[in-house]
Amino acid sequence: MRDFTYQNGTRVLFGKTAQSAVGTEMRKLGSPVLLHYGSGSIKKTGLYDEVRRLLAHEGLEVFELGGVQPNPRLSLVREGIRLCREKGIASILAVGGGSVIDSAKAIGIGAPHDGDVWDFFTRKAEPTRSLPLGVVLTLPASGSETSISCVLSDGENQDKLASNAAVQRPAFAIMNPEHTFTLPAWQVGCGITDIMGHVMERYFTTEPEVDLTDRLCEATLKTVIDAAPKTLRNPDDYAPRAEIVWAGSLAHNGLLDTGRIGDWATHRIEHELSAFYDVAHGAGLAVLFPAWMRYVYKRDLPRFVQFAVRVWDVDQSFADPEGTALEGIRRMRDFFVSIGMPVTLDGLGIGKDRFDEMATKSQRFGALGQFVKIEKQDVLAILNLALQKDW
Amino acid sequence: MRDFTYQNGTRVLFGKTAQSAVGTEMRKLGSPVLLHYGSGSIKKTGLYDEVRRLLAHEGLEVFELGGVQPNPRLSLVREGIRLCREKGIASILAVGGGSVIDSAKAIGIGAPHDGDVWDFFTRKAEPTRSLPLGVVLTLPASGSETSISCVLSDGENQDKLASNAAVQRPAFAIMNPEHTFTLPAWQVGCGITDIMGHVMERYFTTEPEVDLTDRLCEATLKTVIDAAPKTLRNPDDYAPRAEIVWAGSLAHNGLLDTGRIGDWATHRIEHELSAFYDVAHGAGLAVLFPAWMRYVYKRDLPRFVQFAVRVWDVDQSFADPEGTALEGIRRMRDFFVSIGMPVTLDGLGIGKDRFDEMATKSQRFGALGQFVKIEKQDVLAILNLALQKDW
Repeated sequence: MRDFTYQNGTRVLFGKTAQSAVGTEMRKLGSPVLLHYGSGSIKKTGLYDEVRRLLAHEGLEVFELGGVQPNPRLSLVREGIRLCREKGIASILAVGGGSVIDSAKAIGIGAPHDGDVWDFFTRKAEPTRSLPLGVVLTLPASGSETSISCVLSDGENQDKLASNAAVQRPAFAIMNPEHTFTLPAWQVGCGITDIMGHVMERYFTTEPEVDLTDRLCEATLKTVIDAAPKTLRNPDDYAPRAEIVWAGSLAHNGLLDTGRIGDWATHRIEHELSAFYDVAHGAGLAVLFPAWMRYVYKRDLPRFVQFAVRVWDVDQSFADPEGTALEGIRRMRDFFVSIGMPVTLDGLGIGKDRFDEMATKSQRFGALGQFVKIEKQDVLAILNLALQKDW
Repeated sequence: MRDFTYQNGTRVLFGKTAQSAVGTEMRKLGSPVLLHYGSGSIKKTGLYDEVRRLLAHEGLEVFELGGVQPNPRLSLVREGIRLCREKGIASILAVGGGSVIDSAKAIGIGAPHDGDVWDFFTRKAEPTRSLPLGVVLTLPASGSETSISCVLSDGENQDKLASNAAVQRPAFAIMNPEHTFTLPAWQVGCGITDIMGHVMERYFTTEPEVDLTDRLCEATLKTVIDAAPKTLRNPDDYAPRAEIVWAGSLAHNGLLDTGRIGDWATHRIEHELSAFYDVAHGAGLAVLFPAWMRYVYKRDLPRFVQFAVRVWDVDQSFADPEGTALEGIRRMRDFFVSIGMPVTLDGLGIGKDRFDEMATKSQRFGALGQFVKIEKQDVLAILNLALQKDW
């Protein structure tokens, strides 16, 4: 087990009436508030009106910036930063999923920063302060509601990059599973895949003797695997949805990192897919994880056997560990299919033509991964595996 | 799943050199510092000298109060409170195990309080502020290093009572598993039992559909069960000790409560044993848990079958769930024996003579438990079961 420091002070308010605290929580963070949201679906569901009413009840001045797209854009973040400076915004409230939260995080670190906010993503600068941020979550997926992560796209240059810093962690996160009942099945499937991806990136580590975090990862994965078909069959069944919402936060809040270093090559390759083709992040992960696993599993067969047996309930063949490992990977792929995800690049409408560009760009900060070092030719090999239907 | 609020801001510094940060972390909390510790074992191991040197290096003024006993005493807490007021203490550093930390917590809430600190334990008052507290942990057991709990004994009146409040949570906790290598096997066994007890109190809930926290509980228990014999066999093997230290904090930091209400009857009965006989808390739990489980298991057989199968790897008899449940309880008891714990009251040198007094006192705030309501006659029945060697 590696030495580590862990601190996660985000205040989680979870449950059927959790949003009723949004006014009092935002008052602690300061007025005026920038209310940040996406396409406006929160106006249809009534959540927008409820939030406005609760903010008004606390006497908070509110400015608005809607229109966040999936794979949130640098251009809107810059607009938000201008608005924050112009209006003297004291705090930000993100109402939405990972894209809205990440856009709000970027505005939060950009507003008090003298230079360009994109510097934080190109690693020219590190965020040291942020406007305080509150979240009302409507999509379990990114884990951004309690995480230090923020991913932003510069649409013009096909760049999708991440900033990770403790100051980006939200002050509070309101999670009412009922707010996710109206999500389309496709978004639910993408979200589940993203949650599992966050756990699996941490699970595949070269750090030996990390039994507790291994088991916590397995517990989180098994919970999501069990709840997924239930929630897709009955979207307004509270119980399985609640499991997924809470799992989505635990998957990415730092707990499952304790004592180990995760891999993150698959996420980084997916960021190239999303940057070039604007595909949904979860769908990209569903295609890439089986390919990455097939490419690397021989490097630590016992770990893939453990994954197959403990997570996917494969009946272990002691004489054939490779067969057990591969069966685990196949079951994961079949699970992704069962929740409506594509598992080949063809399913995303992506061919080979820009493989080289993506592979090159993926290396801008050096090789990817910790579990196995992934260089340009490895990215190409993984993308080629991701074309294969049968194996 | 129940609605919940969860926030745990304790900064965890974990690993082989974690204590090197003690000076800089305490400087954030303020000078002068009250250094609080126990019997002086930290002077033998060199930890005391190292901590003093690191505090001095940061220019912090330090006052000392040692002498905390297991089942920490109100009398010493009152002495600490006087010292804090007299010297204008700004922060407290607890170096030790749960008794030292709990004593420090009580001093922390008592110092700024106008009335008597014992009021917080008799539920006449609620703590709303505390001197900030840092911890260097030397014994994995209580989880007090990241918890809101504090248990104190009034030796004179044979009272052992708890105060639970968010302000009691330490600001930081330093955990170096190496600091626990020199612990006697008895203390290690008691600590492991206490850790498992904290998880089991939460596991046995009447709340339905709490799959994720169930699985996180099971993950924590299985980790400890696997690491226990390894750490007892090789006390200075870092890996299993690190698992136990980290599990000890997660067991009691609030995470495993999310979405559910725990039971806590067994802990409350054990507090009576400790108050009347000054027994080690973990040893008392090892005696009481098998008895409590035998008394209540029929009230939710499926949950005890789940416990047997998932935690104790019992081969499930689908035709005989009761047999499966009982086998799980027996394996737990056998496990306690294997780590050197007593599992009958006789093993603690306790007979029937004060059962009635303890059972009466256990009810001072009403019936115990959530999983099953435990009244006076139930406590007597459980204590009688705890006398039985064979069942």
